[in-house]
Amino acid sequence: MILVHGGAGEKAVGSAGLRVLTAALDSGLSLLKKGGASLDAVETAIVILEESGRFNAGRGSYLQLDGRRRMDASIMEGLELKAGAVAGIEDVDGPIRLARLIMERTPHVLLSGEGAARLGRHFEKVSTSPPAAGSLRMLQRMLKKESPTVRLFRQMYGHETVGAVAKDEYGTVAAGASTGGISVMLPGRIGDTPLIGAGVYADNEAGAVSMTGQGETIIRAALAKEICHLLLDGQTPDQAAHRGLKRLLRRIHGAAGAIVIDRTGGFALRHTTPFMCGGFASEAEQPVVRSRFGRVR
Amino acid sequence: MILVHGGAGEKAVGSAGLRVLTAALDSGLSLLKKGGASLDAVETAIVILEESGRFNAGRGSYLQLDGRRRMDASIMEGLELKAGAVAGIEDVDGPIRLARLIMERTPHVLLSGEGAARLGRHFEKVSTSPPAAGSLRMLQRMLKKESPTVRLFRQMYGHETVGAVAKDEYGTVAAGASTGGISVMLPGRIGDTPLIGAGVYADNEAGAVSMTGQGETIIRAALAKEICHLLLDGQTPDQAAHRGLKRLLRRIHGAAGAIVIDRTGGFALRHTTPFMCGGFASEAEQPVVRSRFGRVR
Repeated sequence: MILVHGGAGEKAVGSAGLRVLTAALDSGLSLLKKGGASLDAVETAIVILEESGRFNAGRGSYLQLDGRRRMDASIMEGLELKAGAVAGIEDVDGPIRLARLIMERTPHVLLSGEGAARLGRHFEKVSTSPPAAGSLRMLQRMLKKESPTVRLFRQMYGHETVGAVAKDEYGTVAAGASTGGISVMLPGRIGDTPLIGAGVYADNEAGAVSMTGQGETIIRAALAKEICHLLLDGQTPDQAAHRGLKRLLRRIHGAAGAIVIDRTGGFALRHTTPFMCGGFASEAEQPVVRSRFGRVR
Repeated sequence: MILVHGGAGEKAVGSAGLRVLTAALDSGLSLLKKGGASLDAVETAIVILEESGRFNAGRGSYLQLDGRRRMDASIMEGLELKAGAVAGIEDVDGPIRLARLIMERTPHVLLSGEGAARLGRHFEKVSTSPPAAGSLRMLQRMLKKESPTVRLFRQMYGHETVGAVAKDEYGTVAAGASTGGISVMLPGRIGDTPLIGAGVYADNEAGAVSMTGQGETIIRAALAKEICHLLLDGQTPDQAAHRGLKRLLRRIHGAAGAIVIDRTGGFALRHTTPFMCGGFASEAEQPVVRSRFGRVR
């Protein structure tokens, strides 16, 4: 079983975006069917979303006002609670791969900035390529326009992150997320995506969760961990996602979407925003991708 | 009621360190007695610990191998779940004050590196002073010695962080933490201290928690949030700290200490390490500071 998302927000994703989500599900599922690990399925699905240039992650990342990409990503597995994450990395392909490298080759969980990029180059597993043409065009358009556009970008912050959760035949769950962050933000800002417990969490005793939405509110709620804890308390993925998102709304008027899988293979896709594109696939059924799922108000 | 800690580890803190902890408690408590907010009490107590040069935070921060300090801090209040944090800031006095500035003056929660320091200078609330002489001497000693010392430093990582939790007369809880990070670490490494849900968490519906110990294991357990969730489930601070730390040991062989206060004013100081220095004070009783509290095995 594998779930992916391409961000929650005010607008529906187009058919090209839905096709990329289907490709990501197919690729992750085919690995799982061959007995692959959930960690590999999550990484593979997110690499496809990052490289598509269709989402605000990897090649498609928003450029900041200085014309550069600064990307965040994280990955976690539920057997030993191992995790890796990067924050604010520039000009590196495959932030999610770099997050996994940190998990497997260093004693750390989270590395930021040039120190993280340098680690990637050291292990020669990380290449760099220029930002997608669409990202450059978007920045150019934005710079030409007046402040309403800038205000719009500010409202959009945190949206269009990508993420995936999966469970493999060994019962191990994994979660991952990747983003280009906010287009108009203070330099150095770190959102929920690279923060274990905020943007992602995975624990074989509970399940796996990947979040998207207004990063700051997700951090303040520690929402991925909260939903995992509710699974541990015996709630279903749907109940846990619903209760976690309701509490986010009630306590701090946050905005977020969650994809959740539990240790039995139950799952949920839920969001407080009008839209969250994403999908699910398992050995039993064909991939389903949609622009919206159950909205929590 | 206010609790502080000066880090958990293999060694007991000396009497000079205990005196600083007492001064931090006195200062926070006197604010609370005058009807001050728990957030101010936590900030004031941590500023004293940072400025003392006796702990691995603020002026006393370990220097990294390039002779520079890179500091992390975070602060959170439980009424509206507002939070602010800094990661990897250099040559700035009062990391905890800067964390609070981010909470109050920006739409973000976590800022890293130069972007965070620049914000502090912009608001002119942040001054800089050279590292404590003791930090320079420690680095010089370390650089002269062979790898056993470096290995020792590696083992010590994450220890000697400082932190505080408090509850005020309005029933609002707050938590904060501050650290110089690991002396021997990869550039860009971010530990648990600036991560909301990992190193600190505060929620008026549950309580407030500040952690210290092996940062990477605390992140992977999202331990401050886990202990808060256990309080929310109705456990006492002692039960919640015990259960959270036991789970840390059982699942990932982590090492940590926790100071916990709940919404009724119940509290606990617990650690898996042989020592954790810290203390507590309330209107009803004089400050108590010790080198160790209840050890969880």
